[in-house]
Amino acid sequence: MNGIKNSLVVTTSDEASAIKSSLDYALKNSDIVLLTGGLGPTKDDITKKTLCDYFGGKLVRNDTIYNLIKAYFEKRDRPFLESNMELAMMPDNCEVIINKKGTAAGMLWQKNNQIIASMPGVPYEMKNMMEENIFPLLKHKYATNSIVHKTLMVAGLGESIIAEKIKSVEENLPEFIKLAYLPNLGILRLRLTGNGSDRSLLEEKIKVEAEKIKALLKGYYYAEDEKRIAETIQDLFIANNLKLGLAESCSGGDISAEIVKIAGSSKYYKGSIVAYDYDIKEQILEVDNMLIQEKGAVSEDVVITMATNARKKLNADYAIGVSGIAGPSGGLPEKPVGTVWMGFSSKNKAFAKKLIFPLDREKNIRLTTNYALINLLKFVKEELVF
Amino acid sequence: MNGIKNSLVVTTSDEASAIKSSLDYALKNSDIVLLTGGLGPTKDDITKKTLCDYFGGKLVRNDTIYNLIKAYFEKRDRPFLESNMELAMMPDNCEVIINKKGTAAGMLWQKNNQIIASMPGVPYEMKNMMEENIFPLLKHKYATNSIVHKTLMVAGLGESIIAEKIKSVEENLPEFIKLAYLPNLGILRLRLTGNGSDRSLLEEKIKVEAEKIKALLKGYYYAEDEKRIAETIQDLFIANNLKLGLAESCSGGDISAEIVKIAGSSKYYKGSIVAYDYDIKEQILEVDNMLIQEKGAVSEDVVITMATNARKKLNADYAIGVSGIAGPSGGLPEKPVGTVWMGFSSKNKAFAKKLIFPLDREKNIRLTTNYALINLLKFVKEELVF
Repeated sequence: MNGIKNSLVVTTSDEASAIKSSLDYALKNSDIVLLTGGLGPTKDDITKKTLCDYFGGKLVRNDTIYNLIKAYFEKRDRPFLESNMELAMMPDNCEVIINKKGTAAGMLWQKNNQIIASMPGVPYEMKNMMEENIFPLLKHKYATNSIVHKTLMVAGLGESIIAEKIKSVEENLPEFIKLAYLPNLGILRLRLTGNGSDRSLLEEKIKVEAEKIKALLKGYYYAEDEKRIAETIQDLFIANNLKLGLAESCSGGDISAEIVKIAGSSKYYKGSIVAYDYDIKEQILEVDNMLIQEKGAVSEDVVITMATNARKKLNADYAIGVSGIAGPSGGLPEKPVGTVWMGFSSKNKAFAKKLIFPLDREKNIRLTTNYALINLLKFVKEELVF
Repeated sequence: MNGIKNSLVVTTSDEASAIKSSLDYALKNSDIVLLTGGLGPTKDDITKKTLCDYFGGKLVRNDTIYNLIKAYFEKRDRPFLESNMELAMMPDNCEVIINKKGTAAGMLWQKNNQIIASMPGVPYEMKNMMEENIFPLLKHKYATNSIVHKTLMVAGLGESIIAEKIKSVEENLPEFIKLAYLPNLGILRLRLTGNGSDRSLLEEKIKVEAEKIKALLKGYYYAEDEKRIAETIQDLFIANNLKLGLAESCSGGDISAEIVKIAGSSKYYKGSIVAYDYDIKEQILEVDNMLIQEKGAVSEDVVITMATNARKKLNADYAIGVSGIAGPSGGLPEKPVGTVWMGFSSKNKAFAKKLIFPLDREKNIRLTTNYALINLLKFVKEELVF
């Protein structure tokens, strides 16, 4: 929620001492403590009794809750069991929160300017209580600060190189804006978080910083928010009425699968020839056997030929060709495990890039996919400028 | 881990005071405290410095780590930046844990009979440290009860049907053996867990129950442990010197990518023609345009032709052809979203199966992959019997 910072999450076991000590800890470090779970009628649910003890109360029958529960069961033609009676026993020193989606009521204590709320663990019951009871209370009690996030998606560069490139911006960020690096296999989410009282001012300031970062990471920044590279590619290709084809060896169909994950990809994507075996490279992609013999399947010439021939055979405007050594074996002194050549072809140009990925087989394949896609995007954008 | 109870999980923010107070709390309530994250070279990562302060040490350059990091960057032809130097500064009062999968080293303190370990947040780096350093330490320090697991991998049947089939075994399990159902997109892990003091007796008893379950799930059970279907297929194909090819439409390369994830797949896997566009189905796979017009691309006849032509073009002994409507749009009254036809072809036989998957686009694609692979495995096994 705006301006309330989630400083701490504690997961604890269903034991009274553990619950009490977690509560001690949370109350020492926070103004608001929200508890979920442990309110059901079964023996393992002890949170209600424990909280009641903790705040020095005792459990008494709450007639409102009793009648609601009885009605709840009657409406559903379900027997009203002895254990259900327990659900109507509530601490005598809390405000009771009615559960509109189930039978376990919530509890609220306001003590020493702190708020403690206990809600059921069933997600939609808890969410309903949050929305109908807790958020309105918090909004009323705290004139809140705003928190604004903006995420920049970056790919194709290592985290420390990116940090180096944007050092000047990072070092001069206003104090109320923080920057977090969230990397995942070749893709980095740069998340700017601003905290302050004036939301629109905050949004403006964050935008200024975001634009500075984008300018410094030109070619590597590809979208805002949690977008995949394939989504940005899809938008660009469809907007420019372009078609894409692939020829994959070491990535084994992973680039294709990443593209097809996005709904609507059939509007620009033609397909992939996954030429895993040498035979297929020669027979379907028509890469010259002599070229493979001479240069090796993992080579600049072969991936350029793969890309160019895939482009033609698949009637595409652009194509990628990829060949590499994903690992764990198959490395050579001059081509260690992780070596990947990726070729790119358009009507006007063909070129290749060599990369060396340091991880295991599956992750090297994911890295190959992400690097191939970001380099394709860069290539197409550059050609569209002219 | 055996006999060690996870009593508490705390998620805290990247602020020194929050980290310290979480640590206070965890140390008051536990014998072992494992921390993850916050060890990277960027400014927002302050855990190392904070822990160093907490335990009253100071950061000094660690030559072993320095040399490892330098070598790491040199091996990858990446520049060694100033910020990377930070990675070699370690507290002078901890045991340093070498990170075999990355550059941020771990730290270990053993104080007052408590263990505090700090590991990087990148999951595979952390897991490697847990396996190579932390688990062995804990095993050495604590003598524990035995817990024995055995996981049976099952695919191609719904969870409730499986439960019905193995009811007789489940109801008569000895009290010290539990059975868990762990389903994931068409694949079900049935995990037997035994708990007791005599490990070899436990292993024997679990094996007996596992064999009973396997017998009841013949054709659907495919392997023990966490094996993927593609691994079982790979073993079977290589042992029988068979080759595999694919023609994929709606799965978009996902079946191929799943096969290629397994190291050694080049020994039996030829490749895939990802014919996403109609053009490619006609031009590369030579599916008759008239057939597509008449029956539709998502039809029994088309997937059988795709499988048969892929088998021939890719010089394979077996091939799968898949076409369907992954969603979210594109459904028809007689072919709703989620409809997938999968065809299978060998020298002797060709047939197709229709399935209707109920989930979203990405999950329907994963279901397609898993059902295609388990049906291929069944088909090949049946043919090998004769």
